Amino acid sequence: MRCMTVTLLWTLLPYSALAQKSTAPPVPPAPIRSGPPAQVALEVRDYRVNNEDRIVCELTEFLSIPNVATDTPNIQRNAARLVEMLEARGIEAHLLPIAGRGPVVFGKLLTPEATRTVIFYAHYDGQPVDPSSWTDGRPFEPELRTNAIEAGGKRIDLPQAAPGHPALYSDDWRIYARSASDDKSPIVMLLAALDALRAKNIPLAVNLKVIFEGEEEAGSPNLERTLELHKNLLAGDVLITADGPVHQSGKPLVFFGNRGVFGLEITAYGPVRALHSGHYGNWAPNPALEVSRLLASMKDENGRVLIDGYYDDVPPLSASEKKALAQMPDNDADLERELGIAKPDGGGKKLVELLQEPSLNIRGMRSAYVGPQSQNVVPDKAEASLDVRMVKGEEPEKKFQQIVAFIRKRGFYVINHEPTMDERRQHARIAQVVYEGGYVAARTPMDLPVSRKVVEIVEGAAGPAVKMPMLGGSAPMYIFENLGLPVIGVPIVNHDNHQHSSDENVRLGNLWRGMEIYAALLAGLSW
Amino acid sequence: MRCMTVTLLWTLLPYSALAQKSTAPPVPPAPIRSGPPAQVALEVRDYRVNNEDRIVCELTEFLSIPNVATDTPNIQRNAARLVEMLEARGIEAHLLPIAGRGPVVFGKLLTPEATRTVIFYAHYDGQPVDPSSWTDGRPFEPELRTNAIEAGGKRIDLPQAAPGHPALYSDDWRIYARSASDDKSPIVMLLAALDALRAKNIPLAVNLKVIFEGEEEAGSPNLERTLELHKNLLAGDVLITADGPVHQSGKPLVFFGNRGVFGLEITAYGPVRALHSGHYGNWAPNPALEVSRLLASMKDENGRVLIDGYYDDVPPLSASEKKALAQMPDNDADLERELGIAKPDGGGKKLVELLQEPSLNIRGMRSAYVGPQSQNVVPDKAEASLDVRMVKGEEPEKKFQQIVAFIRKRGFYVINHEPTMDERRQHARIAQVVYEGGYVAARTPMDLPVSRKVVEIVEGAAGPAVKMPMLGGSAPMYIFENLGLPVIGVPIVNHDNHQHSSDENVRLGNLWRGMEIYAALLAGLSW
Repeated sequence: MRCMTVTLLWTLLPYSALAQKSTAPPVPPAPIRSGPPAQVALEVRDYRVNNEDRIVCELTEFLSIPNVATDTPNIQRNAARLVEMLEARGIEAHLLPIAGRGPVVFGKLLTPEATRTVIFYAHYDGQPVDPSSWTDGRPFEPELRTNAIEAGGKRIDLPQAAPGHPALYSDDWRIYARSASDDKSPIVMLLAALDALRAKNIPLAVNLKVIFEGEEEAGSPNLERTLELHKNLLAGDVLITADGPVHQSGKPLVFFGNRGVFGLEITAYGPVRALHSGHYGNWAPNPALEVSRLLASMKDENGRVLIDGYYDDVPPLSASEKKALAQMPDNDADLERELGIAKPDGGGKKLVELLQEPSLNIRGMRSAYVGPQSQNVVPDKAEASLDVRMVKGEEPEKKFQQIVAFIRKRGFYVINHEPTMDERRQHARIAQVVYEGGYVAARTPMDLPVSRKVVEIVEGAAGPAVKMPMLGGSAPMYIFENLGLPVIGVPIVNHDNHQHSSDENVRLGNLWRGMEIYAALLAGLSW
Repeated sequence: MRCMTVTLLWTLLPYSALAQKSTAPPVPPAPIRSGPPAQVALEVRDYRVNNEDRIVCELTEFLSIPNVATDTPNIQRNAARLVEMLEARGIEAHLLPIAGRGPVVFGKLLTPEATRTVIFYAHYDGQPVDPSSWTDGRPFEPELRTNAIEAGGKRIDLPQAAPGHPALYSDDWRIYARSASDDKSPIVMLLAALDALRAKNIPLAVNLKVIFEGEEEAGSPNLERTLELHKNLLAGDVLITADGPVHQSGKPLVFFGNRGVFGLEITAYGPVRALHSGHYGNWAPNPALEVSRLLASMKDENGRVLIDGYYDDVPPLSASEKKALAQMPDNDADLERELGIAKPDGGGKKLVELLQEPSLNIRGMRSAYVGPQSQNVVPDKAEASLDVRMVKGEEPEKKFQQIVAFIRKRGFYVINHEPTMDERRQHARIAQVVYEGGYVAARTPMDLPVSRKVVEIVEGAAGPAVKMPMLGGSAPMYIFENLGLPVIGVPIVNHDNHQHSSDENVRLGNLWRGMEIYAALLAGLSW
């Protein structure tokens, strides 16, 4: 997909000329309108239909920079690009460095007369990729399609614009690339919202700060420490996080918390080298079987975790949370149909209820080879990769220790290194269990004035929204909570975005509505 | 590793000049000696120490041709090379073609006055390779090492020969390459044995036929049919198979059967696409967990298979088989130490006993990603690859159906295709189970005259041998059994050869002894 718009027109007039206190050049004429959210949304739409080329161009160029957190040169290129994108809007930008990783990109845009400061959080790194499992094989070469691949979407070129005749985009078209949804689009839409407000002379109601993180998908191991070092930059009144999809019903979503998360890797060991399965099968213990037994023992038939104490720290839902859950649309049957699920886990509970509980998920499993690559061996090891989600009140390290204790109880000698020959000879079952780190959940009361106001604006701009006490997904929002900030989630991307997997995508219609929502928040948030 | 010997000297005097009925050129002088196996072995050794360069060169050049059965162009290059190698010895060679695969390479060398015909079987294809898991990363670029890698063996160049001063090789050196052991070395050693006999004027006692197969590691799907079409070529008195390692004690091995084998692939399905584990974990069924539960249910704690009827067709061991097993060296404790196994499966039975039973082995397992590539998803599918070994009397298809019935009993809807959306919506547990084909076991009585004679010669040439009723490994020897041929295994390669896995290797000392054994058989076999 080639991007045809090479001149970033907005750079001709920095946003700061409008929004920042400045001595020169003269402030432009007063805004003609600063109406309610619906009015802002309409103005932004009018701007957008004439600038879709430019917005899509900025997004696809950004998506072309590979962004796996551990790919140091590229992740730093992403950060440098973000600084350019911010500065093009007259936003003061700073890199908060992290050795060997992508820095935190911080930006600040002051608004005359504003008393409230909104901090907008998103992340610019993406999950690891396996190009061979992508339909187009190139996760960092964005492709435009007429619809979702599973709905028969075909690859198309970018439409061509002519002077005075903007190219025509359809809302159902999708851009395919790693981080198309998670989480680069919200960044680009926030900046597009600023451009639209400027173009329509609509002033911001708040000071804006942005925090764009470069290792969220790697577990945010350095974010807390990095922000601690730059605490002076972080004064604010609310944190808006853009990370996550909208509700599966297609309605806008506002959420008030995230589950915590940590990852762990379990490796079981067989013979010191893979053995011919004819000459040693029946005799050499098979580590794939050992891992299977272990994993199978962790949950009951309904997916309930059988590890001792696993649910002990889960607080009961409050009355208001129960009410919010009851009010959420129940589209589980639609989801089951869409996803080809005959019987979900959970013993009859609804999806939204299950997301308010801790989880234990096998995210991957590997031993030797399968399919055409399979070799007739007893493998030397078998690996399982797990992720755990936690609710408010649960501590990652305590939960990890519960899992380790369970593995020990199952007869494994648990170590955190490759076993030595002596260890292999002494212990019939050995598991290397590696804790990858993680963080706790976050939760903001749904009845704070700012919580109510965010909902009011989102609904004013985009219609009835789904209000969710806590999102099932994770982001390190506890850090901002610890800074005393309410944390409210306003995601914009489609739910069927293949987030974290191959063929990640974003639907254009979601981008456009998200841009309107963000503009309405920037123009109208006060409480 | 560069091979320095480019001229194949033996081509100066075709073996046929010595061994085949021929009118011209004149037959060389009568042999000076055709003594007992020990004497032949000494003569062969004398030849070998002056020709190690040439032998290693022929082997490494052969190993340089990639030989995965499904790699059609390369597997056919292997066959063409084999024809050259046979014809260089004056052996009449034919390709018995198989569409799209490597042909069966057939060779025939008649011996004046001989009444017995020995058919020598080996295969020239190798198991699939994953170069990234090889220490040197290049399974088809043979490397010489001073010892096994796990014993600290270092890579070295081939030693340089000078006129009159053969290069010096050490018995403990090893050649690393796919099929270094399984199964190209025995082919090269048989031909080197012929060269040595010719050079020492020792006549063959038998007519020799060779059958070199090109898809043994792919399950020999075409061998039976191909040989059936060329039955006229196959008249003979005994089949010697070279496939397999010697006993773990290091002693020579003679075996009298092979287990049968088949493979199967099981795929369990979750949601139609991998889902974000935060937004859907606890609710979306996890196929990795399903597969784990299934695999865990297949065996008890001692590795005994729990599938209904799994051991029903196993015949009891005969008195002579029991006696042979009892006489085999019990080096299980050494093996456990070497392989780092604290407690073998089998409930206390010895390895050799367990190899006389059917097995069920998980040869591989895969779902989504692990380690640095792991993604926080509920995977869309999980695969397990299994191989099954069978004893005499068991039928692959019947055994496969036992497994399918077991999977059904565990609640799976069993199919042989990717599930449709309707099937996904109807069935909570779905398993695609694919039968890869296979074949039955073979078994030759240990007390036939030819059985006794082979043992006598092997022991005469190389000292006390281990006699094994049936090898744990598989080869399609049932085909020859059905042709009325006794099948006797005389393997030569080291047991710790990483057969089927990465870093496959062969120890030079084993090659040299194997060459002496094969020469002694060719020179002395009569019964």
